[in-house]
Amino acid sequence: MTSISFARGFPGPDLLPTDEFGECAKAALARDGATALNYGPPLGYLPLREWIADRHGVPVQRVMITNGSLQAFNFIARHHVQGGAKVFVEAPCYDRSLQILRRLGAEVESIPLSDDGMDLDALEEALAATEGPTLVYTIPTFQNPSGRTLSEPNRHRLLELARARGATILEDDPYGLLRFAGEGLPRLFELAGGDGVMFLSSFSKTVAPGIRVGYAILPEELMGAMQTLVFENYVSPVMFVEATLYEFASRGSFDPNVEAIQEGLRARRDAMIAALARELPEGTSWNEPDGGYFLWVELPGGLSAESLLAQADDVGVAFIKGPDFFFHGGGESAMRLAFSYERPEAIDEGITRLGRLVRDALAVAA
Amino acid sequence: MTSISFARGFPGPDLLPTDEFGECAKAALARDGATALNYGPPLGYLPLREWIADRHGVPVQRVMITNGSLQAFNFIARHHVQGGAKVFVEAPCYDRSLQILRRLGAEVESIPLSDDGMDLDALEEALAATEGPTLVYTIPTFQNPSGRTLSEPNRHRLLELARARGATILEDDPYGLLRFAGEGLPRLFELAGGDGVMFLSSFSKTVAPGIRVGYAILPEELMGAMQTLVFENYVSPVMFVEATLYEFASRGSFDPNVEAIQEGLRARRDAMIAALARELPEGTSWNEPDGGYFLWVELPGGLSAESLLAQADDVGVAFIKGPDFFFHGGGESAMRLAFSYERPEAIDEGITRLGRLVRDALAVAA
Repeated sequence: MTSISFARGFPGPDLLPTDEFGECAKAALARDGATALNYGPPLGYLPLREWIADRHGVPVQRVMITNGSLQAFNFIARHHVQGGAKVFVEAPCYDRSLQILRRLGAEVESIPLSDDGMDLDALEEALAATEGPTLVYTIPTFQNPSGRTLSEPNRHRLLELARARGATILEDDPYGLLRFAGEGLPRLFELAGGDGVMFLSSFSKTVAPGIRVGYAILPEELMGAMQTLVFENYVSPVMFVEATLYEFASRGSFDPNVEAIQEGLRARRDAMIAALARELPEGTSWNEPDGGYFLWVELPGGLSAESLLAQADDVGVAFIKGPDFFFHGGGESAMRLAFSYERPEAIDEGITRLGRLVRDALAVAA
Repeated sequence: MTSISFARGFPGPDLLPTDEFGECAKAALARDGATALNYGPPLGYLPLREWIADRHGVPVQRVMITNGSLQAFNFIARHHVQGGAKVFVEAPCYDRSLQILRRLGAEVESIPLSDDGMDLDALEEALAATEGPTLVYTIPTFQNPSGRTLSEPNRHRLLELARARGATILEDDPYGLLRFAGEGLPRLFELAGGDGVMFLSSFSKTVAPGIRVGYAILPEELMGAMQTLVFENYVSPVMFVEATLYEFASRGSFDPNVEAIQEGLRARRDAMIAALARELPEGTSWNEPDGGYFLWVELPGGLSAESLLAQADDVGVAFIKGPDFFFHGGGESAMRLAFSYERPEAIDEGITRLGRLVRDALAVAA
């Protein structure tokens, strides 16, 4: 049986701009091949940096392009942790970021996530009890793994808290543009006027992950340290792919492409929500995100997601178990479902399989 | 005055396959776009890994593709230094590798370089005086920065030494295919039957640096640790560019492209050698490499390369001063000249400027 995957956050093949991107590569090399095929500056291909700076209304000196935004997270985390910063993360939190913090030996404190984002009472208390530099890492919009979004009043409050306590915020926003319902919310970075907030984003979800182009908007005084890290890792990022992406962006294809992705994701989410309501037994709960890739399921009767996962392959469905997203434990009875990859019909079938798995497990437990 | 650069090891724009690479990108996406634009496996695009494995006669499991070969050096060095290995480097040695070792806090010992590569008497003595794991890092062919090549008898002796002392060799070979004169020499990796030697190479010099595709051939048991490092840095390398490069390689363009580069480099080296002989005062010495990007100049009368460099910009010429390539000091009166970037006529003019600079400095010193 072909497995239906709700596991990693991959876009479906139908959401990738395959034909046009090839055209853009050819045009980019015809236009600027000598630059695109040689070594370039450590912070990236200048026209693309300018395009990004322009969209965010910041000086180009603050923009660093990296091989995916996780690379920027790695560099920034390394810099701050070596500078003695304690790191506050959401619980649950993106598993790859947690893994980097673990490897760095960072001092990490988990802040629970409520339905509308980070629990700010808990954060306030934790910040008050902390001396020294602090970094607050958050994915405020369509969070990975939970799909949850920080409400607008809470965005203001988070900024106030951080300001009052001298904490630096690291806002990771790969999904913000993928809103397919509801009202858009301002980024923390915007609300803060670009001050006290470092911003990460990526073209993985708005164009394609296989191009590995992410970026960070940072205080200018960090750029020296970032350049050194670039020189010690990959000399310069991939000029060829950045020039191709710039061609894609400058000919006006970026926004229509995002709209097409939004449509595709909306249909997938709708299929998943409908199937969950139909197939999952009473006592199961999940959220209905207005964008992004993921939703978060709490299983009924304290079922173990890990035990379910052990049988999931046999019935042809895949997901990530909750505990993978917690630094200090938790999520035993939860799972992350990505609705980004499979088409609606496959999602329907996959959730049917998942529902059977859960009902069977409940029956055994009873 | 436009500066003529013999500084960084960039290929000239005329040595880049600008038109064809654009065609290949288009064809690669038409053929395998869904794979090329999505996340991929941490060790790289499988068809390209297989092509590399095939050329080197190794199982594909031993091949890791990275964003340029320096990224692989970084990962390998990290792994070995954290495992307690002492690292032996050539003096002079590639500056970016030294910088990585410095940052890692590695225990490093410099082994002098003679005209035909690493001084093996010195290495033998150093290895005999060392306990614990050791890594010998070498660029045996058209070395960066010196352009020197380890002779064939010395290749055998180096392998024997390493074997007798249980040292691991890390062979870095970005320039080996760029031989435009003389007889080819076997790689250390080949002579060793792939055993006890880790091998690094890159498509930066044989195709284009702006694609940032390098690779390592490693013992299979290292691959788990390498994959973890990939996941913590960039998730997967750039599938899009690797699929494009595979298209370029599989349609048979790789070898003809290398031949065209060899021709271009030969003309550049010839121009540089002729101009050096004409313009540099007696007492200056340099080597005449049969390939690669660089040659190494020893200045007359103990002139300081650093002082010369301070005036070089004014006369419109650029180079890298010797001391940048030494971990423990040295090279004060030496410089690296890259003949890879400028065209022969510009090389002639640049060396004329350099000759004037050196003669003026000698006159002041007299």
